[in-house]
Amino acid sequence: MEAIAKKNNVTWFNGYVSRKDRETLHGHKGAVIWFTGLSASGKSTIAHLVEKKLHQQGCSTYALDGDNVRHGLCSDLAFSSEDRVENIRRIGEMVKLFVDSGIIVLSAFISPYRKDRQQLRSLFHNGQFLEIYVDCPPEICSSRDQKGLYAKARAGVIKEFTGISAPYEPPEQPDLVICSYKQDAKAAAERVVNLMKQCNIIWADGGVS
Amino acid sequence: MEAIAKKNNVTWFNGYVSRKDRETLHGHKGAVIWFTGLSASGKSTIAHLVEKKLHQQGCSTYALDGDNVRHGLCSDLAFSSEDRVENIRRIGEMVKLFVDSGIIVLSAFISPYRKDRQQLRSLFHNGQFLEIYVDCPPEICSSRDQKGLYAKARAGVIKEFTGISAPYEPPEQPDLVICSYKQDAKAAAERVVNLMKQCNIIWADGGVS
Repeated sequence: MEAIAKKNNVTWFNGYVSRKDRETLHGHKGAVIWFTGLSASGKSTIAHLVEKKLHQQGCSTYALDGDNVRHGLCSDLAFSSEDRVENIRRIGEMVKLFVDSGIIVLSAFISPYRKDRQQLRSLFHNGQFLEIYVDCPPEICSSRDQKGLYAKARAGVIKEFTGISAPYEPPEQPDLVICSYKQDAKAAAERVVNLMKQCNIIWADGGVS
Repeated sequence: MEAIAKKNNVTWFNGYVSRKDRETLHGHKGAVIWFTGLSASGKSTIAHLVEKKLHQQGCSTYALDGDNVRHGLCSDLAFSSEDRVENIRRIGEMVKLFVDSGIIVLSAFISPYRKDRQQLRSLFHNGQFLEIYVDCPPEICSSRDQKGLYAKARAGVIKEFTGISAPYEPPEQPDLVICSYKQDAKAAAERVVNLMKQCNIIWADGGVS
């Protein structure tokens, strides 16, 4: 038994398969494209369009937004400033593992605080994290808002609503700014994909570098 | 601007790329192989060997264990029974998203409570979650334990150590039992891969079903 115990012991932790191995299998790098902006600014729409384009090129992708995170991983958190910080912290740590698995993550969260987004960026190597600012005035966001959240926020029914009763801190040096009030979502998605090529996350010919 | 606002609005949430699409791209199903057992029972070793075999067959995989979760996603949690529950809850919710992304996750966590593992299983569809019980007596685990955790637990330096001063509830109906005190880790990994074929997570010829 001693021999088997020796053979079975847990002396390594990085495993036999590295991030590089997984990236080679997938034919692209693991990375996260982080969309930030007000509610109903168009983050999710653009993120999903980017995912579609990448998937069509054979990339392994995953889109994250409030819908698949707020009901699960962060279901215990509300919208106080403290909870927002913890929300983004957990998402960041999870996304770090997704990126390590060789996936391209399209993240669409309001993520209103500059400090939190800087903290996010610090989790990743150069070229693994792209911050995309989806810029749109609150009045346009409000006019698109099918859930009526802005109206409820203005009426005080929803508290601490970003852009109305809670702050949004725009990025100072985002990797890309999309003015979604004057640019079509498809064209915006195209710009994101082009930036990913420039950053060598994906390759122009769709093949492995 | 109104026209663009309409075009850009966020009316759908499932995206254009489904789990099925991602599984087709990867050539296998998204799933989690959940290894449970005492510290130093061999969970991580077997999980990483399974990952290696799957990767060699072209599968998209990721191995999760205390090392890549306890320092990040769950860095705010300790080892009280309450924190252990929250630890496994968060991991479960994260793994659910990994499985949805079409990845095969190899999870190696002590996960001592039966109720938590039942809760985990309930997050997944049939055939997406396999529970593997890595059975090994504490005295053998202790003899393999290079970190000296068992000795510290017995001396009372480490509190609430599973198998010594905290409970471990063995699975009642695991999908597979591996007696790691009498079976070689490679042979164990082979059995796991065979089970995955039987469960149609991967296909015998390595191709898409």
